[in-house]
Amino acid sequence: MSTLFQPLTALSGLPADAIGDVITFGNDQPLTLDSGAEIKPLTVAWKTYGTLNAQKSNAFLLCHALTLDQYAAGTHPVTGKPGWWSSMVGPGLPIDTDRFFVICINVVGGCMGSSGPHEVDPATGKPYGLNFPVITVRDMVRAQAMLLDHLGIKSLFCVAGGSMGGMQVLQWAASYPERVFSALPIATAARHSAQNIAFHEVGRQAIMADPDWQGGDYLIKGTTPRKGLAVARMAAHITYLSEAALHRKFGRTLQDREALSYRFDADFQVESYLRHQGAMFVERFDANAYLYITRAMDYFDLAADYGGSLAQAFRGSKTRFCVVSFTSDWLFPTPESKKIVHALNAGGANVSFVEFDTDKGHDAFLLDVPEMFATLRGFIGAAAQARGLNAKADA
Amino acid sequence: MSTLFQPLTALSGLPADAIGDVITFGNDQPLTLDSGAEIKPLTVAWKTYGTLNAQKSNAFLLCHALTLDQYAAGTHPVTGKPGWWSSMVGPGLPIDTDRFFVICINVVGGCMGSSGPHEVDPATGKPYGLNFPVITVRDMVRAQAMLLDHLGIKSLFCVAGGSMGGMQVLQWAASYPERVFSALPIATAARHSAQNIAFHEVGRQAIMADPDWQGGDYLIKGTTPRKGLAVARMAAHITYLSEAALHRKFGRTLQDREALSYRFDADFQVESYLRHQGAMFVERFDANAYLYITRAMDYFDLAADYGGSLAQAFRGSKTRFCVVSFTSDWLFPTPESKKIVHALNAGGANVSFVEFDTDKGHDAFLLDVPEMFATLRGFIGAAAQARGLNAKADA
Repeated sequence: MSTLFQPLTALSGLPADAIGDVITFGNDQPLTLDSGAEIKPLTVAWKTYGTLNAQKSNAFLLCHALTLDQYAAGTHPVTGKPGWWSSMVGPGLPIDTDRFFVICINVVGGCMGSSGPHEVDPATGKPYGLNFPVITVRDMVRAQAMLLDHLGIKSLFCVAGGSMGGMQVLQWAASYPERVFSALPIATAARHSAQNIAFHEVGRQAIMADPDWQGGDYLIKGTTPRKGLAVARMAAHITYLSEAALHRKFGRTLQDREALSYRFDADFQVESYLRHQGAMFVERFDANAYLYITRAMDYFDLAADYGGSLAQAFRGSKTRFCVVSFTSDWLFPTPESKKIVHALNAGGANVSFVEFDTDKGHDAFLLDVPEMFATLRGFIGAAAQARGLNAKADA
Repeated sequence: MSTLFQPLTALSGLPADAIGDVITFGNDQPLTLDSGAEIKPLTVAWKTYGTLNAQKSNAFLLCHALTLDQYAAGTHPVTGKPGWWSSMVGPGLPIDTDRFFVICINVVGGCMGSSGPHEVDPATGKPYGLNFPVITVRDMVRAQAMLLDHLGIKSLFCVAGGSMGGMQVLQWAASYPERVFSALPIATAARHSAQNIAFHEVGRQAIMADPDWQGGDYLIKGTTPRKGLAVARMAAHITYLSEAALHRKFGRTLQDREALSYRFDADFQVESYLRHQGAMFVERFDANAYLYITRAMDYFDLAADYGGSLAQAFRGSKTRFCVVSFTSDWLFPTPESKKIVHALNAGGANVSFVEFDTDKGHDAFLLDVPEMFATLRGFIGAAAQARGLNAKADA
């Protein structure tokens, strides 16, 4: 089992099983990466919700986004807040845990128990830090497939996720088409855009500019690059919202004051909000993990593995797809989803596409968008019927 | 005359007159600020292009944007590059220096010779740093009006500027309507949006997170917050472009390599470009000035001074306005310009409005957009005719 070298601040005092289920594969089962490097031994941490049926046909894989983790439902052990898709995952909810066996796996490179820069390198007894190999979205998916093999799950009823989770969904459908009965890529893209790479690079530079980052060795040296990581988060957080949402939520409203301070205090609520987002983030996330996972997203270009043809990635796929985007998402705007849909159609796949009208920006996939719930319930229900999965009442 | 305490890196070795013309007003002529504080003595640095006519009726004021300065044309003494509007300002160009007396003034709070945090506080003999009072766009315009009074220019033929320069144009038209014959607010807004405040706050936090910022005292302590200022610039620079422009210029093209490095090098051209933008910026701009000027933009809300009515700000104005926006500008999107146009119309002003179709983003106002040149040439020409200014041939 993997060792957390130095727990994230708020992990301190948590019970050992707080990260969920964990497996460390033997050295005879390394994870061979796109870079050619190996992770050996490989540790994977995950959570499950619901029960696997006898046919092992009701497994529903959720792929998490950049800074999220395996806590899709229930209460997050670090933040004490509901899991990231609590509104979607649970008894009677669109991803019905009375009906499906929901699995969510911490990505390789993350910081909630799976192998990553925050973990101890068994070869040295010290935290990996920047000695951890650079990983890709395909590497994340490979590790997930190894876990599913271990669990004896040959075929997934559905793979779903938003943002980087959606990238994993697309990678799953391309790499293991026979293992994916249905797929829900949400608010995502088949390749990361120049603008998105640029924003990620700003975040990485902010982290690396912090002297407490210590060239990546902060875990050994007992520091935390709080300020740099907070700035990275603040910049990224703006991209998760929309101008309209920021205007609606904050406008130019002042924070706890009647007039401008004529100082550099957080005069405006939006400043105070951003500072708070930055401060909270450093309590739950590892700076090096942020570097690795943003890099994996930047590297994502699914068509590149198929001679530059995205359609080729999905050629002959029997997977049922539902591609989802949001009108106000400027990080993964609708044209990116349409490119996926065009490629799926060109590849002869079964695909539906829905764009939801909302001002909530990219984060809409995590928020209360009733039309999305209704649509996903419909898509999942139809797919379950096609899969021959009984509703709870008939189970 | 003001004293540059410690020159910006590349200012070293420049001749003393490199910043253009400079005046320091007497202590009996302080600049009284919106905050209630005073700048005393006030120093203002400016550059002129062309010749003031006998009637002093051909003065054309250019208001510069956040990180620009009085070098609108000619060669910039620090960067060695052409002035920021060299394509627009010169003999025979739309802002024709054979015809107009062009004035461009370094804003108060800036770092090219006007009073600002980079300058020595005469009261202490030390650099102002954070002891410099927080200034507003209206304060900038007040200082400009003092200089024009000094130069005996009662009425400006035109006031033009983009971005924060456009804010100054609007402030000029509102504060001194009788002194502004025509006005060209470009790619701007009458109030800074929550999203724009948020981006500025990220930049400020990046600067203040740098230990070399030294609580604002870096000039005294002999350090420079290079890394923080570079991160601030990188984040801001993304907002000056458009996703389409970034895609067109860089896409996912690799920088000087055939394949991904699987490291944290600048694999992608867009990363290398951003790092370069950050590195260049710290050679020419002062970190505290960046704090002050971004703050001034955030504070800008013209209607607030007129009971919340933007139309009231322009009530009865005789100024001829041409409001300009760009389709791909997401920092100051067209709806912001339309709000200005609506207010001008409601205030009974003479206004035309043009939105140019370009993928160049916010920075389009500084770039080669032939349709913009043609339109501005037309607007300026018609205004000059109405003003009774002869063309060069008739002079």
